[in-house]
Amino acid sequence: MSEIEIKDKSIDVFLDDLASKSATPGGGSVAALMGAQSAALVSMVCNLTIGKPKYAEVETDMQALLEKSEALRDRLTGMIKADVDVFNRLMAAYSLPKESDAEKQQRSAAIQLVLKEATEVPLNCASACAEAVKLSQIAAQKGSIAVISDAGVAVMAAYAGLKSAALNVYINTASLKDKTFAEAKLAELEKILHGVDAMATETYSLVKTKL
Amino acid sequence: MSEIEIKDKSIDVFLDDLASKSATPGGGSVAALMGAQSAALVSMVCNLTIGKPKYAEVETDMQALLEKSEALRDRLTGMIKADVDVFNRLMAAYSLPKESDAEKQQRSAAIQLVLKEATEVPLNCASACAEAVKLSQIAAQKGSIAVISDAGVAVMAAYAGLKSAALNVYINTASLKDKTFAEAKLAELEKILHGVDAMATETYSLVKTKL
Repeated sequence: MSEIEIKDKSIDVFLDDLASKSATPGGGSVAALMGAQSAALVSMVCNLTIGKPKYAEVETDMQALLEKSEALRDRLTGMIKADVDVFNRLMAAYSLPKESDAEKQQRSAAIQLVLKEATEVPLNCASACAEAVKLSQIAAQKGSIAVISDAGVAVMAAYAGLKSAALNVYINTASLKDKTFAEAKLAELEKILHGVDAMATETYSLVKTKL
Repeated sequence: MSEIEIKDKSIDVFLDDLASKSATPGGGSVAALMGAQSAALVSMVCNLTIGKPKYAEVETDMQALLEKSEALRDRLTGMIKADVDVFNRLMAAYSLPKESDAEKQQRSAAIQLVLKEATEVPLNCASACAEAVKLSQIAAQKGSIAVISDAGVAVMAAYAGLKSAALNVYINTASLKDKTFAEAKLAELEKILHGVDAMATETYSLVKTKL
């Protein structure tokens, strides 16, 4: 496709595309973008803590955190597009001919195959957003007080991304015929979600006490 | 300023700017952008519900909702920049000379003046995000089932935007010397926040039951 990738579009154009009656981009891309914003804010907290004499004690931790948050931001930025790609493949599978019995069977098999991928994509996004919640917590605990509110915004963005990605896992597993696969993926999601509610709430409260 | 406005920058460049050691853009812009993404998703749900025979009954409601969500998106998109502008004015006030007593007094007065504005900006953002939570709820209640997960993402994005904007209200009121003004603004914020937690949770649950 020669079309410009979402991450290279302006924010204004992205929002227009989002609001339009086109099915993509949609919530899956927003989930990834919220995660990427969270990771970027964690990086900002690190960058504004590193090198400050007052925070020399956490310098090494902040360097390590920055490395993680930048890798995570890269991963999440890539997921903005991954959601659109898999959605398009799913729509293509649904558009396959369904006249003959053979066609019906082929179409159904194609849909089921893409649905598995369409489950993995938001599951990966959920996992990355949960990681962003954890990194935000470290930023809130150790980052410079001057940018502590940014760690608070980071945790809220990551949490929203996680809960959003989860919705897309629920939808796609619901249409899966391979119930063993579906249940395994839902179990993975539950594992990812476990404890993150509490961690997000705690981190937000911690930030509030430091303001 | 001849510099390109944030909304006209690519997502990738915005994320780079966010992650950098520059103090702007920061969490305030992310709060506004999350709100704008929420409003855009509400518009998407409307646009993909309007005109569908199955949803003829809610057509008028969806038209009215779309009008509100598009106006709100416009407002929130403008706030991405407003946060940076007021932050820059605040930094400029802090940079004023403070040698003589007269200078100290002038500088302090200038800071206090901009701090009031720096309280209003995130308060407006919080108010707009709370409105986005309400619009997301209507989208979740009445929108096409085919895009119901997008209403769920919309509510999470709006909620994250609201809680993020609130942090910036807390910070700036804490530095205000005019305690009457500060308390009035905190009371306004509490009014905005009231009931939104429950509404966001309810809306998310509603979406989950519809998947």
